[in-house]
Formats: sequence, C-alpha cells, structure tokens
Amino acid sequence: MSKYAFGVDIGGTTVKLGLFDESGAVLDKWEIPTAKENGGEKILPDVAQSIRAKIEEKGIAVSDVAGIGVGAPGAVDEQGTMVKGAVNLGWSRLNIPDELHKYLDVPVKAANDANVAAFGEMWQGGGKGYRNLVAVTLGTGVGGGIIVEGKILTGATGAGGEIGHMHVEDAENEECGCKNKGCLEQYASATGITRLANRRLAKDDMPSVLRSGEVTAKTVFDAVKAGDALAIEVAEQFGEYLGKGLALVAAVVNPEIFVIGGGVSKAGDVLLSYVEPVFQKYAFMACRDAKFALATLGNDAGIYGAAGLILQ
Amino acid sequence: MSKYAFGVDIGGTTVKLGLFDESGAVLDKWEIPTAKENGGEKILPDVAQSIRAKIEEKGIAVSDVAGIGVGAPGAVDEQGTMVKGAVNLGWSRLNIPDELHKYLDVPVKAANDANVAAFGEMWQGGGKGYRNLVAVTLGTGVGGGIIVEGKILTGATGAGGEIGHMHVEDAENEECGCKNKGCLEQYASATGITRLANRRLAKDDMPSVLRSGEVTAKTVFDAVKAGDALAIEVAEQFGEYLGKGLALVAAVVNPEIFVIGGGVSKAGDVLLSYVEPVFQKYAFMACRDAKFALATLGNDAGIYGAAGLILQ
Repeated sequence: MSKYAFGVDIGGTTVKLGLFDESGAVLDKWEIPTAKENGGEKILPDVAQSIRAKIEEKGIAVSDVAGIGVGAPGAVDEQGTMVKGAVNLGWSRLNIPDELHKYLDVPVKAANDANVAAFGEMWQGGGKGYRNLVAVTLGTGVGGGIIVEGKILTGATGAGGEIGHMHVEDAENEECGCKNKGCLEQYASATGITRLANRRLAKDDMPSVLRSGEVTAKTVFDAVKAGDALAIEVAEQFGEYLGKGLALVAAVVNPEIFVIGGGVSKAGDVLLSYVEPVFQKYAFMACRDAKFALATLGNDAGIYGAAGLILQ
Repeated sequence: MSKYAFGVDIGGTTVKLGLFDESGAVLDKWEIPTAKENGGEKILPDVAQSIRAKIEEKGIAVSDVAGIGVGAPGAVDEQGTMVKGAVNLGWSRLNIPDELHKYLDVPVKAANDANVAAFGEMWQGGGKGYRNLVAVTLGTGVGGGIIVEGKILTGATGAGGEIGHMHVEDAENEECGCKNKGCLEQYASATGITRLANRRLAKDDMPSVLRSGEVTAKTVFDAVKAGDALAIEVAEQFGEYLGKGLALVAAVVNPEIFVIGGGVSKAGDVLLSYVEPVFQKYAFMACRDAKFALATLGNDAGIYGAAGLILQ
C-alpha cells in the first residue's frame, strides 16, 4: 500500500500543486488561482478543496496520504506559522498547518517558499545526493535557500539564506529594493545584469550587438555565447560579484554544492564558467571543493520541495 | 542519583578538562600537558587516565558518567572523526570516540574546538537562552562557531563558521595566513588591529599615545577609552570591517545573537559600540534585530561546550 504526498507552492498569482508517490515521482501537477481577496481568507480553503478533489479523482484513501507540504512567500517558523503574515497574499500572522487541519485531517508542514525550493533541488533536482547545499535563485532578485545536514536553515526571523542582500559593493549610489545600497541582488539578478550592461554601454562607444534591441539578462548571455566583447565584460563583472559573494557564503556555511537556478540560469553552463573561477580565487581553502550545478526542477522546485518536507 | 559529564578541550600545549554535573555547573577543572610526541599517540590515553583518576578521586560510579565531550583543533565530522587529523597534535585521521572507548566505556562525542566553544557560550555563557547563535573569537586570528537551532553547524569539510576568512577587502597586498588576501581576520583579530594601528601611525604625524610604547589590540582600546583620536580612528576602521562582515554573516544564517569573545573582547562594551552601528547600517532589514553580547566563559568555553555536547 503505497503512500502519497501533496506539494503546494503558494504564489501571488497562482498556487501550484503536485501529487507525489513516496519514491518522489510526481504523479500529477496542476494550478489554481490565488484568491487574494479579503485578506486571502480563501487561499487555504481553496487548496484543501483542490486536494480533496484530487484525492477523490484518483481514488486515494485519505489514510494513504502521508501529508501535505506547503511553501509560502514569507517568513515561516518551525511550527509552520507565518510570523509576519504574507504581504503578497494579504495574510496577517497565521499558522498554515492549523488552517489546513480545519479541512483535511492529514499531517501538514510549511516553510518559506525559497527554502522549500532549495529543499526540492536537494531532494530531486540539481543537488540530489547532497545534504549540505546552498540554492541560489537568480531571478528578478537573488534568492537563496540553505540546507544543512538535510534540513532547511530557517534562521531567527525566517531570513536564513537571504544572500541577495549581502552588502558586496561600497561604491553604489542606487538603492536596492530593501533600501540598502550595494546588495548582491543589484548585480547578480536578471535586473542586476541588465543594470550592469546598461552602465557598460553608457561608458563608451565600444560596439556590441546589445546596442540594437532590448538589453536583458538573456540577451546579454546570448551575446556572450556569440562572442560579443562588451557582453563578455558584463558577464565577467557579474561573475566577479556572484563568485565573490558565494565565497563569502562558503566561509559561513561550508556547503558541498551550490545549485544555481532562476530565470538567469537558463543561460546554462556558460554562466557557471564566469562564477566558478572567481569563487575558487576568493574562497577559503577548506571550502574550495564546493561543487557548482544548475538547478533542474525549474518552476516545479517548490512543489517538489514541499512534498519532500513530508516524504524526505 | 545525579549524573556527571566530562568536558575535554584539547589544545596544542595543554588539555583542559572539566567535571560537570547535569545542571551544567562545573565541579572541578584541571589541565594536563598535551603529549605531542610520536604522532600524539598518548594524548587520548592520557585524557582517559586523567578522567579515570578523577572518577576515583571523587568516588563517582562509572555508570553515573553520562559521557565525555571533546573539542579538538581541526575538522571533525558528525561521527567524531578528525577527517584530516590535527597538525597541532601530530594526529593523522582518527576517530576520537573509538580511541577513548578503548579505555573508558562511556558515551563520547567530539567536535571542532571553535565550534565547541561556541556551543559552550550558548549553553552556559553569553548566549545562554538562544538557539541560533554566531560566536566570534577575536584572538590571534578570527574564529567563528555557528549554532543553528541548538546544533553546531559543522559544514561539508568541517569549515562551517570560518568567518575569519571571508574576503572583505580588495585593496590588500599582504597575505593572510590562509594565503588569500583581504580576509576579515587581517583587520579584526588582535594582530589585525595592530596592523591597522601601525598603518595609521605611519600615515602622518597625528599625535597619539600609541607613538610611545607597544602597539597591541589592548593598547589601542586602552587609548580609545582615554579618548585618543588616532586610536579612535583605528577602532572605527576595525568596527567597519567587523560590523560589515557580521552583516554578511547575518544575511546567510540570520542568528538571534552574536557572542563576541577572544582576547580582544576583553576591551569590553566599548568594542561592541564600534561594531553594532556598522552592523545595523549594512544588515538586511529582517536580520537587523540580532543582538550582540560579550562571551563570558573565557578560556573555559571549550570545556563547557564539550560537556554540553553530552548534557545539552
């Protein structure tokens, strides 16, 4: 009699759900809209209803459901309480397991979405086989999730792994979203790479394919692959910031592997080629063996990691 | 029938030992020389013999010994194996519990000495009452120990918490002991503060009490307390490096508290007054509530932490 788990990744627009068997294989995945009206009061009832419908559709006995894992956008403590609520969802402080237990009598675990995605990459993704891992998400911002001996590092206020907000540049005059200046995210995110490219383009008249058309992290790395000298300079700057930043992280948590994901990572191995040598240069000797890999689960890392909270 | 534990802190010159009751009070403490001859083969037999003698002296039943905790200078894995041995002791790879079990039939746990000291400060020292803590030791170098949810963060190769080797300065031309350049330790250790002071003294002819007599971390902070303007500049530089460095650490592990120890910390609260405001400036918002405290166990942190591995 095999067991099942559900992985739930609550986002600001949609809630992603997945049904997993105990081997960690995804049997089904689907999405529902995030009902943010009225302080998001319907979000968790909707999740419960959707899971109940799936249980019926698949003819699964409730007693065969090992549990439901949930990733949510905000600080979540060890008991699954969103200590400061979730601005994106309209939530004020609430305990996710307690809420879901009103509708479904199965075990529930909850954690921060970025940390849950990191956990997913460890369990079934680019970090499979490792138990000390740092997941780095290069998207609009730079997110991070740290796994220590197979367990999410939550931190005192749920801000463990917020490596995008490490201060890495004194000579910055623009503010980061967090109001500080010189955060890693200002150089290593998709928007950060675009900024670096636009600054480089403005510096002189060096020719570049980036001068015609849109400048984005994608067009920058496409240009790098085509051998564009200016784009290569931008990639080197990016690599200098990220490689140096991850060397700092390594001196703190000494991971076995860094797993790089997010939209920017679609550039592929070329991205790592700008990061790893810089990491090697700045990392403390004993931390230098850390491996680098690309994330493999993409947008599904959240549902995998959430299910993994139950099954792993 | 109360239980007892022994805490053992193995150093390059002496081994410190302590007998603790289960409340965490130290009942007795003593030292034996570290027998480094012949690859340090006598060190652990000496420890065992010394503990056995103490058990007899105190009339303790072996069945009332809850265990022996050991801190050792090098990378120690979860099983208590010194994976690369210990250069200071002459040891090659060895498993500490297995060795001690040859002489004493009680539970044994072992961990890295800096991490054990951090654990001691959490259990009975400046970090008592907290479970997410970063201990920073400002001595000849800068050491660190990280406790996450009450557990030592060991890291993949035992280098978790090696925050003295975070790269924090690009404009450095002298090498750190680790062969990199610009490590935090080059500015925030006792020797680092002396370097900063000597550099400042050489810069111009600004008067300072530091121009007569020895320049050390102690004389610098004594001069700071006496209002010496040049020494205050040096303290500000020190605070800038350390405060900024700890803000980086906070973005990674998000501790509740930083506990500052080591010889330099004898300067007292004045030291924190140069570090905390800089930390506040650079720390990510959600990590900014981290507290700062001075370590309180001094050289006994190791035996406390080692006993704590058993009793906590």
